[in-house]
Amino acid sequence: MVLHLVPRWSASLFRASPRWKKTYSQRASAQLKWLGCPRSVYSPLACRAYSKVSGSPEVMLTPERYPVQRLPFSTVSEEDLAAFECIIPGRVITDPEQLQTCNVDWLRTVRGCSKVLLRPQTSEEVSQILRHCYKRNLAVNPQGGNTGMVGGSVPVFDEVILSTALMNQVISFHDVSGILVCQAGCVLEELSRYVQERDFIMPLDLGAKGSCHIGGNVATNAGGLRFLRYGSLRGTVLGLEVVLADGTILNCLTSLRKDNTGYDLKQMFIGSEGTLGVITAVSIVCPPRPKAVNVAFLGCPGFTEVLQTFRTCKGQLGEILSAFEFMDAECMQLVGQHLHLTNPVQESPFYVLVETSGSSAGHDAEKLTNVLEQVLNSGLVIDGTMATDQRKVQMLWALRERITEALSRDGYVFKYDLSLPVERLYDLVIDLRTRLGPRAKHVVGYGHLGDGNLHLNVTAEAFSQELLGALEPYVYAWTAEQRGSVSAEHGLGFKKKNVLGYSKPPVAVKLMQQLKAMLDPKGILNPYKTLPARA
Amino acid sequence: MVLHLVPRWSASLFRASPRWKKTYSQRASAQLKWLGCPRSVYSPLACRAYSKVSGSPEVMLTPERYPVQRLPFSTVSEEDLAAFECIIPGRVITDPEQLQTCNVDWLRTVRGCSKVLLRPQTSEEVSQILRHCYKRNLAVNPQGGNTGMVGGSVPVFDEVILSTALMNQVISFHDVSGILVCQAGCVLEELSRYVQERDFIMPLDLGAKGSCHIGGNVATNAGGLRFLRYGSLRGTVLGLEVVLADGTILNCLTSLRKDNTGYDLKQMFIGSEGTLGVITAVSIVCPPRPKAVNVAFLGCPGFTEVLQTFRTCKGQLGEILSAFEFMDAECMQLVGQHLHLTNPVQESPFYVLVETSGSSAGHDAEKLTNVLEQVLNSGLVIDGTMATDQRKVQMLWALRERITEALSRDGYVFKYDLSLPVERLYDLVIDLRTRLGPRAKHVVGYGHLGDGNLHLNVTAEAFSQELLGALEPYVYAWTAEQRGSVSAEHGLGFKKKNVLGYSKPPVAVKLMQQLKAMLDPKGILNPYKTLPARA
Ligand SMILES: Cc1cc2nc3c(=O)[nH]c(=O)nc-3n(C[C@H](O)[C@H](O)[C@H](O)COP(=O)(O)OP(=O)(O)OC[C@H]3O[C@@H](n4cnc5c(N)ncnc54)[C@H](O)[C@@H]3O)c2cc1C
Ligand SMILES: Cc1cc2nc3c(=O)[nH]c(=O)nc-3n(C[C@H](O)[C@H](O)[C@H](O)COP(=O)(O)OP(=O)(O)OC[C@H]3O[C@@H](n4cnc5c(N)ncnc54)[C@H](O)[C@@H]3O)c2cc1C
Repeated sequence: MVLHLVPRWSASLFRASPRWKKTYSQRASAQLKWLGCPRSVYSPLACRAYSKVSGSPEVMLTPERYPVQRLPFSTVSEEDLAAFECIIPGRVITDPEQLQTCNVDWLRTVRGCSKVLLRPQTSEEVSQILRHCYKRNLAVNPQGGNTGMVGGSVPVFDEVILSTALMNQVISFHDVSGILVCQAGCVLEELSRYVQERDFIMPLDLGAKGSCHIGGNVATNAGGLRFLRYGSLRGTVLGLEVVLADGTILNCLTSLRKDNTGYDLKQMFIGSEGTLGVITAVSIVCPPRPKAVNVAFLGCPGFTEVLQTFRTCKGQLGEILSAFEFMDAECMQLVGQHLHLTNPVQESPFYVLVETSGSSAGHDAEKLTNVLEQVLNSGLVIDGTMATDQRKVQMLWALRERITEALSRDGYVFKYDLSLPVERLYDLVIDLRTRLGPRAKHVVGYGHLGDGNLHLNVTAEAFSQELLGALEPYVYAWTAEQRGSVSAEHGLGFKKKNVLGYSKPPVAVKLMQQLKAMLDPKGILNPYKTLPARA
Repeated sequence: MVLHLVPRWSASLFRASPRWKKTYSQRASAQLKWLGCPRSVYSPLACRAYSKVSGSPEVMLTPERYPVQRLPFSTVSEEDLAAFECIIPGRVITDPEQLQTCNVDWLRTVRGCSKVLLRPQTSEEVSQILRHCYKRNLAVNPQGGNTGMVGGSVPVFDEVILSTALMNQVISFHDVSGILVCQAGCVLEELSRYVQERDFIMPLDLGAKGSCHIGGNVATNAGGLRFLRYGSLRGTVLGLEVVLADGTILNCLTSLRKDNTGYDLKQMFIGSEGTLGVITAVSIVCPPRPKAVNVAFLGCPGFTEVLQTFRTCKGQLGEILSAFEFMDAECMQLVGQHLHLTNPVQESPFYVLVETSGSSAGHDAEKLTNVLEQVLNSGLVIDGTMATDQRKVQMLWALRERITEALSRDGYVFKYDLSLPVERLYDLVIDLRTRLGPRAKHVVGYGHLGDGNLHLNVTAEAFSQELLGALEPYVYAWTAEQRGSVSAEHGLGFKKKNVLGYSKPPVAVKLMQQLKAMLDPKGILNPYKTLPARA
């Protein structure tokens, strides 16, 4: 038996051995007490855009890189600014320095040239702003934490930026049902902390939690790291308050688990990326905080073994399996190179992170231990380490959560977020490595394997039309052939709106356009986003 | 210590005692093997409408009881029948005897006078039928298993009945992901059996499973007995195929856990009760079949104790809690009187049924045992019995599942299906008993406590306008005051469409009407249902 020692922390490391099992079991009950979630300490990058902009080279203006024409909206006038100032005194920002960060997306790939940022505090203020913009035919770009991946969160031209940053109040929390009602601008991590203090957790979690807003999460129908266990926001969001394009307030902010009175209008706004209405408040049901959390980080010899490990975990961990993430060897290399994170296990072609969350530390540890012994003994896993206490759990999670950050330090990133049949999930990565050859710096695959969700990323020294041409539409056509989704969780925003047709039939696209026309007849809300321009 | 002996079966009964616990634990691993779900053996009533119609007195025609005017749709002509016969040869039913059952709802409270029943087998046939009806301005009533509770499933006047009964094929099943794709007319119980043989379960279960169709479940956004654990159909339904009013086929039948390409159109049709389109196929994700199922049936001294028992179970059973149902003493009396079911525990003011489903028989039994000892010792529970094997589990479930049937044998039933804050859930029942006095035969409360869902039922010898006047709008106003829902899971259909305003603001109602006009501009799909008539 070899016990690994990992330089950066004294993790509980293992090889299949009776001794290891015993040691683990003894420690489990003593150590599995902590449940807080300050993982973001290890993912500071959520705020990157803000810190980086000043020092970095200017991002190219969107219309310079992409073929897009400004639609005939009005231009913000002095009178408009005065009207905004009346509605939200002192919260109309026109200072170019301040505007810079919210004109550029987190990935630094698109840039608008908005001249005004509005920071309302209430739904009533949002309503008055939209009523004004609607009357004046001014285009509006709703913005949350600006962590979106598809260029949806920043203006394409000079749209008015309507930020939810100051709409950050919790409205109510029910400590038996776990139902949280809050304004749309609450930062996910702050909500997380708030409900954890009350013995609940948020049903979603993502690497951007330190910056993203719950309204932005709902607007993008974010998936993230807890999707496998707690499901989609379509089930956990119970109510929304939305301000429509003309300023009408639609109040569907109920806190009921079940409500079948008429059509469920809130669903239209979940995942609509700011194109149908501005979400101003959210009611969401939070699951009870699990009493025990365990994380195992494993090295697998091949993708087939990754899949078999998943099947074994799913079958045997059942209801306590809360995450099954995977990353390839190149991801590990990048987090090592750019962020100096250390690989806690033996070098392997693939790594998986398995998390369990349950109500009994002893039972959970026993289940996980059994599974781990099985996958080690059967050769599905080469090497692994397990963590039960807060710090180690965070460190293992950081390896997975900080891949996005490591990639963004590697150069220009071409990002694809695909749903594919799990069996074929990794084939595209291999295929692309051959196809692109030395034109790409790195071609990596990682993601939420448990949900059939691959994050395929290609890095290069700089943006290049030629590389883009080699990638698109190839990646989309490949995905469509597998009947996959060309955007599993990131949405379409500005950058992917023209690929909608790879995953949806023309009848559906037409209906979406009708829905848009019904709710926003002048098209002022987040124009140039989500839907392809009409022929 | 007293060991109860229940006449109808040798249940594992308990009072808090060390001996009991031991006995239980020993038996658990041996007995918790079975996982099939033939509970419907105990709820044959799902087919009641079909068997009862001939012998029972005629149900009053809907327009005779309710103030409703026929809209100016065309009347089915000989040419229409010939056209239908061309599309679905041999499956155009005009025989009055056969039409009788599908003109009357399960509860026998509404009756239409349709002259034709169409039984298509494919989406293409549905499309052709609707294209014809749309052109001819013929109203259409989509019908699944006809088990709906709000008069939505039968015609109000002479609408064409479009039944999914022959659309009952499984299209595909993926035995790793558990994703099932099937036609809309598959009977829930048959699907249940199909996936159980493959080690999965359906994410929903309801008393009507022997008759209801998956399409009908989706069309009503049915909740049911597994909602607490597996959540809403809004999360578990992955794709739909829908035929629109004009015959257009909308294919959103994907099998992806995540897909954020554009607006999620299928959500519009979930819970739209046949008013926006005809669902022809469903893609749904099934959870793995739990390895262990335990059911406890408990008697509680008061509603406060019911709530505290729920809190204890939720806190301690965590992820394995799969149902928490309650019923009052009058419910128990009715299932005894009309169905000869025996109360397995000491007579109590309230009863709760707690179910756990998990992946380890031993672990689950230990958790449940601990909880049960705790609630017994603290006086929250007076008496209880627990079942781990199939037959006993079914018998305990029958007590809860067959309440609907017992009620329907008690006379005319006024049914309310409300979402309320759990703390106030039972107050309305008590309130109504006083308010109605001897005018009501029985006023009972039961339901899905874990979801805040009360089924409030009032029985009387016969329908009476006076009793109805005492109940409505009182019940709705009371519910609205608690910010509850006047239809938690049954929908609005014909009977509740005018109470939508108690749970939704005018802005929302207007938007729903716009949506209806957009998708069904001639209003031919299930007219007189779901939405209040426009002013
Ligand atoms: C490090 C990192 C990790 C990530 N991990 C994941 C992940 O695991 N899973 C995942 O799904 N996504 C992930 N994302 C992307 C994800 O979409 C966003 O992080 C998040 O959901 C967006 O929230 P936001 O508040 O930043 O919205 P923004 O980026 O500001 O906006 C996103 C879109 O929503 C609209 N919008 C924002 N707020 C509102 C509102 N109140 N009303 C109407 N429209 C609004 C915007 O117009 C825009 O179209 C990640 C991003 C980063 C940077
Ligand atoms: C004993 C019993 C127990 C029940 N328990 C529950 C419960 O626990 N939870 C719960 O939520 N409900 C319950 N119900 C009511 C529930 O709504 C139905 O049982 C079920 O969901 C309806 O399915 P169905 O196929 O019978 O639909 P139907 O009754 O035939 O139709 C219901 C509605 O859906 C429409 N519809 C049906 N099929 C389609 C289709 N393919 N496309 C478009 N529209 C369609 C109809 O027009 C109608 O408006 C119960 C009913 C009974 C009789």
